[in-house]
Amino acid sequence: MIPKRIIYKNKTLLILDQRFLPFKIHYFCARNVDDVYKAIKEMMVRGAPLIGDTTAYGYLLGLDNIIKEKINQKKEIIKILERNARKLKSARPTAVSLFKCTERVHNKAIDYLKYIKHSSLDKKELLKLRKDIFDEVLKILNEDINSTLNIAKNGISLLKPGSVVITYCNTGALATTGVGTALGIISEGYKKGYISYVYACETRPYLQGAKLTAWELLKNKIPSSLICDNMAGWVMKTKKIDAVIIGADRIARNGDTANKIGSYSLAILSNFHKIPFYVAAPTDTFDLDIKSGDDIKIEERGSDEVIKIRDIYISHPDVFAFHPAFDVVPNNLITAIITEKGVIKNPNTKNVISHLKK
Amino acid sequence: MIPKRIIYKNKTLLILDQRFLPFKIHYFCARNVDDVYKAIKEMMVRGAPLIGDTTAYGYLLGLDNIIKEKINQKKEIIKILERNARKLKSARPTAVSLFKCTERVHNKAIDYLKYIKHSSLDKKELLKLRKDIFDEVLKILNEDINSTLNIAKNGISLLKPGSVVITYCNTGALATTGVGTALGIISEGYKKGYISYVYACETRPYLQGAKLTAWELLKNKIPSSLICDNMAGWVMKTKKIDAVIIGADRIARNGDTANKIGSYSLAILSNFHKIPFYVAAPTDTFDLDIKSGDDIKIEERGSDEVIKIRDIYISHPDVFAFHPAFDVVPNNLITAIITEKGVIKNPNTKNVISHLKK
Repeated sequence: MIPKRIIYKNKTLLILDQRFLPFKIHYFCARNVDDVYKAIKEMMVRGAPLIGDTTAYGYLLGLDNIIKEKINQKKEIIKILERNARKLKSARPTAVSLFKCTERVHNKAIDYLKYIKHSSLDKKELLKLRKDIFDEVLKILNEDINSTLNIAKNGISLLKPGSVVITYCNTGALATTGVGTALGIISEGYKKGYISYVYACETRPYLQGAKLTAWELLKNKIPSSLICDNMAGWVMKTKKIDAVIIGADRIARNGDTANKIGSYSLAILSNFHKIPFYVAAPTDTFDLDIKSGDDIKIEERGSDEVIKIRDIYISHPDVFAFHPAFDVVPNNLITAIITEKGVIKNPNTKNVISHLKK
Repeated sequence: MIPKRIIYKNKTLLILDQRFLPFKIHYFCARNVDDVYKAIKEMMVRGAPLIGDTTAYGYLLGLDNIIKEKINQKKEIIKILERNARKLKSARPTAVSLFKCTERVHNKAIDYLKYIKHSSLDKKELLKLRKDIFDEVLKILNEDINSTLNIAKNGISLLKPGSVVITYCNTGALATTGVGTALGIISEGYKKGYISYVYACETRPYLQGAKLTAWELLKNKIPSSLICDNMAGWVMKTKKIDAVIIGADRIARNGDTANKIGSYSLAILSNFHKIPFYVAAPTDTFDLDIKSGDDIKIEERGSDEVIKIRDIYISHPDVFAFHPAFDVVPNNLITAIITEKGVIKNPNTKNVISHLKK
């Protein structure tokens, strides 16, 4: 069994610190918004859906602290909640779920506060506010769980029995509260005979594939090999690969997909070998305000994250490494986007918008 | 200055153990064929031309030991030399220079021994044999040095001033006795204004790019960034890349090129972005007995070399990693092969053979 990723208990959020996996099961104890911000920023928690779930809980912790500190002035509460929302949204620039989930709980709170006409809230009103937010958090979590199961079902519909696939980064249970997105299709597909073998790319520099995906595959007893990212082309040429399935951090309205750095190269390699290239993500990964991939801001991270692995230098300390954390796969390299609502074949603005309206 | 890669002194060969670079300058002291076999097999020494130089010295050490042990029966000497040659050639399966250089010194020895008609050699004959081999070794080394300078000159002729290039693995001074092959073009080109910036791919799993190339670039003060291999596509899309230049371990008669795993992917990415893709290698990298890349045996190495970096696990110890050490770039993805003799544009069997006849 894959350990629980987040556990909310006694007004604290235990966050499985995925940086220690698969070597150590360690939970970081978050008690406030700053802790959750830190956990997301420092990548203890990762995977777009799980980041969304975590930020929602982070917002709830902020509210718990307002209540604990007996703050009851509506104006002050709004000020703090706005600051909290801003802080949480600034933890990572690319995962749209971080924005969406934060705004979802924040809007819920503001809606309720707007409805209160007097300047200070009584205890009952505060508890009602908290209950509304808590319910919204649970709703987000449940949606995540159900949506991953539906993504799996829809993804499997594209596979023939016994498929051999390549996957990238970690998009499994560890990236969501549910079964996962791309890796959810694979693990559910394996149970039903639709997957026979998996090549997991290690995904430098963070090695989410080596640390997390290979471990999930091992735990789920799915026949698989880890490969270095640079082997993907050769594996496509020499092994019979039926599909490449990856996740997404943010999808523009035309279907251009921002995902972990390396996704773009993988899509070109799939295209060259005429292998279907699938993106699996819940619909809340779409950002309709973004017209195309050109408008997606790509997070650049530190050089040290490339030249050090597990605190050990792999290059001379004076070497500078360029480190874009994401790249964008253009829609014309994507065979289909798989969501909880179904499948968008040959994604473009028109069929993305009509899919989301379903 | 890049430290000397091999130093022959007092009948021992000091081999710069490149596995410790750039962290430690450590020389392995080889006293016999077994030591040199070990140094090549365990990748203390790497880079096709340098492997060739090292094996030649390995053969010489074998002869030194025959003389030291006062073996003078022609039959026995031939038997030992044959065993030594076989052993050296078996250290790595892909680098053609290993075979060619071993056979070159071995044939030289056998030719001399054939000329001796009596069954036991006197001291003078033994010393003549040793001198012949020693001269041949020095000839191999000098050819390596001169050929890298010519490769650099020919490679530069393809570049426009101020070029921005991507390179792969390590093909610099550390891979040869001279200035290097692909990286030799870059370092010599930089001196002459033909190179303005270099992206060095880290080259998993051995990280020759991170450990060696980035360090050579740093030592030579060439403006550069290290990148993870999976970033190459995105760098091609977002930076103005003028060329990709790599080395080669073995080139078939039709120009198909076996090189470090990941070269194939890089060639496809270059092709997609319409960036010239150059292979730089001395002519002795060609193996005319091999018709095409399909006939090149690809060395598969251990899973542990992928799941451990500098003795630290990066994945669960039970994970299996597929580890082809090389792949093959088909000739139609190669813009030109650069040798010490000139440039083979659009390589195919016809123009490879006519080039080698020059």
